[in-house]
Amino acid sequence: MSMVRDLALSAKAAARRLAAATEQAKNHVLELIAQELWQAQDEVLAANQVDIQNGAAAGMSPALLDRLALNPERLQGMVAGVRQVMALPDPIGEVLETWQRPNGLVIEKVRVPMGVIGMIYEGRPNVTVDASALCLKAGSAALLRGSASALESNRALVGCIKRGLAASEIPPETVQLIDIPERSAVDEMLRLNGILDLVIPRGGAGLIQRVIEQSTVPVIETGVGNCHLFVDDQADLKKALPMVINAKCQRYGVCNTIESLLVHKAIAPTWLPVVVQALVERGVEVRGCPVAREIVPEIKEATESDWATEFLAPIIAIKVVNGVQEAVEHIAQYGTNHSEGIITENHAHARTFLEQVDAAVVYHNASTRFTDGFEFGFGAEIGISTQKLHARGPMGLREITSYKYMVHGNGQVRP
Amino acid sequence: MSMVRDLALSAKAAARRLAAATEQAKNHVLELIAQELWQAQDEVLAANQVDIQNGAAAGMSPALLDRLALNPERLQGMVAGVRQVMALPDPIGEVLETWQRPNGLVIEKVRVPMGVIGMIYEGRPNVTVDASALCLKAGSAALLRGSASALESNRALVGCIKRGLAASEIPPETVQLIDIPERSAVDEMLRLNGILDLVIPRGGAGLIQRVIEQSTVPVIETGVGNCHLFVDDQADLKKALPMVINAKCQRYGVCNTIESLLVHKAIAPTWLPVVVQALVERGVEVRGCPVAREIVPEIKEATESDWATEFLAPIIAIKVVNGVQEAVEHIAQYGTNHSEGIITENHAHARTFLEQVDAAVVYHNASTRFTDGFEFGFGAEIGISTQKLHARGPMGLREITSYKYMVHGNGQVRP
Repeated sequence: MSMVRDLALSAKAAARRLAAATEQAKNHVLELIAQELWQAQDEVLAANQVDIQNGAAAGMSPALLDRLALNPERLQGMVAGVRQVMALPDPIGEVLETWQRPNGLVIEKVRVPMGVIGMIYEGRPNVTVDASALCLKAGSAALLRGSASALESNRALVGCIKRGLAASEIPPETVQLIDIPERSAVDEMLRLNGILDLVIPRGGAGLIQRVIEQSTVPVIETGVGNCHLFVDDQADLKKALPMVINAKCQRYGVCNTIESLLVHKAIAPTWLPVVVQALVERGVEVRGCPVAREIVPEIKEATESDWATEFLAPIIAIKVVNGVQEAVEHIAQYGTNHSEGIITENHAHARTFLEQVDAAVVYHNASTRFTDGFEFGFGAEIGISTQKLHARGPMGLREITSYKYMVHGNGQVRP
Repeated sequence: MSMVRDLALSAKAAARRLAAATEQAKNHVLELIAQELWQAQDEVLAANQVDIQNGAAAGMSPALLDRLALNPERLQGMVAGVRQVMALPDPIGEVLETWQRPNGLVIEKVRVPMGVIGMIYEGRPNVTVDASALCLKAGSAALLRGSASALESNRALVGCIKRGLAASEIPPETVQLIDIPERSAVDEMLRLNGILDLVIPRGGAGLIQRVIEQSTVPVIETGVGNCHLFVDDQADLKKALPMVINAKCQRYGVCNTIESLLVHKAIAPTWLPVVVQALVERGVEVRGCPVAREIVPEIKEATESDWATEFLAPIIAIKVVNGVQEAVEHIAQYGTNHSEGIITENHAHARTFLEQVDAAVVYHNASTRFTDGFEFGFGAEIGISTQKLHARGPMGLREITSYKYMVHGNGQVRP
């Protein structure tokens, strides 16, 4: 038997016991985990130092090293995150629907845990803690595979989690870390059908693509966001500028930031210079379609591939369009079904856009940066789904559960 | 460009127009399709005859030929099925939840179509019509891949569907049949990420396994059912016998039929002879564990593999267990998460079983044969899911939809 399979099987056995745990028991173990994390601060930071030194020696970029680095403040953030998950209502056991059939059968649709959830993620060690806490509260075991670069940090963090579990009635195998460095461990993990119920990849496009290509276990695709804002001719331009700036500049490296701006041709001549200046002042490189470049000649030319690119950087592509219908078409062609918005005071235009754009979240008069579990009020987030199966958009506790039907009879047989 | 990809792309374009269609428009086209099917009876039956002759010449088994065969009665059943789907409420546009955030953003969770749904299925031509009608009403285009053995029948049926569509405002490309005989067409279909939103395989375990192995498009796994009934020591045995007989004998070749019977040791000595006799009288071959064979020596020995087998035949394996906990453990080890039942008058035992057994549908005092979209009151069924992602158990119209969030603001930006 392989180690990966053994870890998964023990997680599956633990998941059955976790599924029967009360909300009180789950909250109790989350509190124990929070305390362990806090008490083991020195141990976790020392382990992280090893990863940082290895990463620096291997020539890892400053940006990646920053993602990897822990400090007391970040650790405190993780601990606070665990306590936030404690405060969320337990999703398990909720009766979603009940109905009676003419033959007297009473059918209840009840929310149940997913079972065992696999997480495959990159350098951020906080995902280890966030995902474990969310899975635990949602009644599922977690099989974790972090980046090899964060191996020592993840070992230390999972050590804390397991100590918390060991002090509770919930088995320590509820959270399992696959800490073999070989990439073949991931291949094996992705074929654990019948043991693993779901895999969620979190990371760059390459990681997500690899998981989708190779997994026979059901996957929820997360993350890639080529998002747009469309500014209509009937937009309130005083509102529009702060929304565009926020959607582009509030944070560059994240999936709900816009990469392209679509502007109605009627307002382009007067408003494009304003928005371009505001973006350039903030250090954003602006690329434009030919019409945009006629109006603001100093911007670069946007290439065909720019429309399809998630820059994750201070770069924006601007296209002048004939109206809401062309905006919808452009987004259908280049968007990634993540977050798309229209800025307009015309409700018919807004309605058309909201209905016709096929994305997880569609916005009317708001920044796309709100696509986030916390901003939605879910209290936590395990990722943002860009597929249409199971969960779409920000995924909180409910989005990582399943349901089953409980049928109550008194001897019914099928005629 | 390949033909499979072209078909899928045209289906995707059609799906966008279908998504905007009213309930009235969808019902209208379903009625046109029903009429076309009825009027083209001779053409469809003639095409089916070609398939039947080819099948017979190729040495197809009588059972498979029967599955493939159409006649006026079966065709009438399909037409009635289309009209049943018409009568179902339109699931699209339903507002599932609405809430307001402290910053004033109003978030609506709205049910939307899945997009393009791929169906891969075996010899039954009725799936062509059933799946098309269900997808259409649920607002999704259907990309169909039936068995090569049913090619002429499926061409004729899709011809009728397309004539119905052509007479309506919904594009004929809404339903596309992949009618290239090469198996590579399926491989290609299973990698149409970004065009196809979901693939549902319907057929035997081999087909389902192949789809799971090869698909990079999200899949809903259907069908394999190694189902159990557990008869507790506190069962009402007058009720138990008809339920066991119904769950095993009402139909042999289907997924919600039981393959194993678990009997509490306290009632085994007196009741096992009764149930075995009733099963044998109906032509069922009974295999048993050593304890069962001590009580009823004439039954065969059940092998280890029998506990894990979906016989789909008049064969049953019987095991004597110590109580509800051993029943739950046995089902956890051998079940396929489909349909599992307990027969008891003890509500604590029933509760334990319903909560601890991990299956799509768990029954208390009812036959497992009710796991079916019609029996659940869904009015139709596109398959029975045995996975936990997205939909579990019988899938009707709602189970083949997705949702999106519509966020209404007045200029909100993220702080």
